[in-house]
Amino acid sequence: MSERERVLRDINAEPGDRIRIVTGEKTYEGILMPHHAFSQDDVVTVKLDSGYNVGVSIEDAELSLVGKCQPREMETEEAPGSPEKPSVALLGTGGTIASYVDYETGAVHPAGTSEELAFSAPDIFDICNVDADVVMHKLSENMTPADWTDIATATASKLNNGASGVIIAHGTDTMSYTAAALSFMLHDLSGPVVLVGSQRSSDRPSSDAFQNLVAAARVAISDLGEVAVVMHAKPSSGLCAVHRGTRARKMHASRRDAFRSIDARPLAFVDDDVRFIGEYRAKTSGETGVAAELNDNVALVYAHPALDGESFMAMTAGRDGVVVAGTGLGHLNEALMPAIGELAADDVPVVMTTQCIWGRVNLNVYSAGRRLLQAGVIPGGDMLPEVALVKLMWLLANVSHDDVAAAMQRNHAGELSERTLYDMFPQQKTYIEDDINGQRP
Amino acid sequence: MSERERVLRDINAEPGDRIRIVTGEKTYEGILMPHHAFSQDDVVTVKLDSGYNVGVSIEDAELSLVGKCQPREMETEEAPGSPEKPSVALLGTGGTIASYVDYETGAVHPAGTSEELAFSAPDIFDICNVDADVVMHKLSENMTPADWTDIATATASKLNNGASGVIIAHGTDTMSYTAAALSFMLHDLSGPVVLVGSQRSSDRPSSDAFQNLVAAARVAISDLGEVAVVMHAKPSSGLCAVHRGTRARKMHASRRDAFRSIDARPLAFVDDDVRFIGEYRAKTSGETGVAAELNDNVALVYAHPALDGESFMAMTAGRDGVVVAGTGLGHLNEALMPAIGELAADDVPVVMTTQCIWGRVNLNVYSAGRRLLQAGVIPGGDMLPEVALVKLMWLLANVSHDDVAAAMQRNHAGELSERTLYDMFPQQKTYIEDDINGQRP
Repeated sequence: MSERERVLRDINAEPGDRIRIVTGEKTYEGILMPHHAFSQDDVVTVKLDSGYNVGVSIEDAELSLVGKCQPREMETEEAPGSPEKPSVALLGTGGTIASYVDYETGAVHPAGTSEELAFSAPDIFDICNVDADVVMHKLSENMTPADWTDIATATASKLNNGASGVIIAHGTDTMSYTAAALSFMLHDLSGPVVLVGSQRSSDRPSSDAFQNLVAAARVAISDLGEVAVVMHAKPSSGLCAVHRGTRARKMHASRRDAFRSIDARPLAFVDDDVRFIGEYRAKTSGETGVAAELNDNVALVYAHPALDGESFMAMTAGRDGVVVAGTGLGHLNEALMPAIGELAADDVPVVMTTQCIWGRVNLNVYSAGRRLLQAGVIPGGDMLPEVALVKLMWLLANVSHDDVAAAMQRNHAGELSERTLYDMFPQQKTYIEDDINGQRP
Repeated sequence: MSERERVLRDINAEPGDRIRIVTGEKTYEGILMPHHAFSQDDVVTVKLDSGYNVGVSIEDAELSLVGKCQPREMETEEAPGSPEKPSVALLGTGGTIASYVDYETGAVHPAGTSEELAFSAPDIFDICNVDADVVMHKLSENMTPADWTDIATATASKLNNGASGVIIAHGTDTMSYTAAALSFMLHDLSGPVVLVGSQRSSDRPSSDAFQNLVAAARVAISDLGEVAVVMHAKPSSGLCAVHRGTRARKMHASRRDAFRSIDARPLAFVDDDVRFIGEYRAKTSGETGVAAELNDNVALVYAHPALDGESFMAMTAGRDGVVVAGTGLGHLNEALMPAIGELAADDVPVVMTTQCIWGRVNLNVYSAGRRLLQAGVIPGGDMLPEVALVKLMWLLANVSHDDVAAAMQRNHAGELSERTLYDMFPQQKTYIEDDINGQRP
């Protein structure tokens, strides 16, 4: 327990309580905020009556409790429902976004109940009626393929019980894996299925949680019949991008606009409106189908020059399917060919993708690639390695073993295109013009 | 053997020979070109006397040999040397770029000798004198860490024997791994070390080989004292980018501008001149140092939701070091904590990086990250996973075991910055303006 934690415990103060801090000649009074990981350990943050937060070091300070927090009652019937508005299901799975901000105290609580979840972004009640459910409460790095099955089942159930669309609040770390899984598991969607997350927790002024949730709500009442990821399109404006579930990838550890569509345009952008910019599958009027079985006994092998045959075999032994993130056009050190041959002899599907992220595998250009094809390696086209892995898990459980290779090379949910859009690759910024103007004569 | 190969063998025709093809009412005569992987299998390509290439199907065609190719004599003394020009060493390692184009026939041969290599891009003789050596002849996907040691040793030897700079012709698949390795292995560089490759072989009209080599030569005579990668900056202009060896990554399977600097600006751009755009280390006047030892007994673990403890342990068992490409800020499923704990108990360094590619690991934001830190996981900052792997291999062989963790967190060759440059992330193209103009009222 840190000194700060000890001091706060001694005065029985918890986040949301009103406290007073006297330090030297200054006195601060306000609501104790939850300690933030970015704050120094000896700093206590209080929200002053002016609305501003202030951080105060507890060193040489005197703290006292002014009053305990009065928890705001959360009743389901408080959620403002309106018969003219479409009803959207909001499924909480965990992560930074599925937290509930108590506006009275400014404190952030994880949304443990569906009522709290519904109130995590009150603005969306202007757009739709919200039927909130907490499906699970997991940081997304802890999600497993079994969780995808639960989410898919819950999503289909909501769509088939009257929801116009489904919003899934999800941690961002593995959101694109879940989005890919739902893209394969759900078919003939009767409404949009929108995954949404946030890169900054909602207790920070820079949080993207509200804007992303509002944009997700707009998409959830559109006529989209696909699984999508909705996140910031730019670091510092409210514009959000709608990425196809099989094309989204988290490309930055921390930026609000971390998610990008790879080798494809986003489906749409959202400001006050959902602006579709290309083709998309529209929702159906029938029942949403679900095939949520998976075989998670697979391996993803990332090729690199120190990867030897022994490691390769240890990583793939006993697996029912293997995806390789090869180099360039889909290559692998020729020293690994015997290991590939063993997998082929055991009838284990091996799918080749590229660690370049952008572009597509082409095993016909060089003889090394042709040898891989001859050994039975399945070319992954322009599928992302992670998406190919999820697709393989799904096919292994849903088609006969003999059909896996052909099905891997067929497009199911926008994950694979016949021709890769070459100009989807971000442009190189050259700086030269700036530099000539700035630093050169 | 294909029908095409059989027909050509029957008339004793090899690439470079003059042949005649009679098909229906048409007759073609010219130089037989090497068969290109993108061509249909039954198509023979001849370079007509007009200079144009034509592809002719051999079906119902009659082929005959007009004359065997007269190989152009390649003498070392033909290489035009000039005492005013700086001398640059050109080391061939293999790959698409290290091929020799016979201008008499248009045929492409792999550069098997240093003379052929020197002639693979005659334009660079205008810039410098060339001392060419074939170090190895490998497609870069087949390179191993032992090859990096050979290349580093050869490079240091050239610099310490009078070369102003060294150009290393290299396949693009693993060029960034080699560039990272040389960045750690070489120190106090007395001249630029420039890796260069091409994404299109030089028998194709769209080849980038010549422009890249010429740009590499310009960089090789500059005052740079670092390891760099020189490749196209744009898909369709001669502008080349100079990437720091520890920041370059191949981000597209096939585009000419596939290489990008990650979380950093390129060092320079090259048109007719080398235009440095920021800070770089200048070459020294002393001896180039080399520490080329490596420990390649390492594993790279790519985190994903189907990765279980059993797989993790199989991938890392018996290794001297492990790099994890975690999710988001550097996370790993908590189910893998026992496996991490076992590695820690065995005193095996485990370095955390992020599969997002851009951005930096921060294990202080969430409790899961703090647990990883407590277990002894080494935060990789903004090092690329591949670069962290190469650095770990180098440190394991060059510093004492107890110093590895601290050294991993210290910058050696620009691979790690104190603050990640946030705006180095490519902008999201939104298309909306275009779309409003094009398709909306």
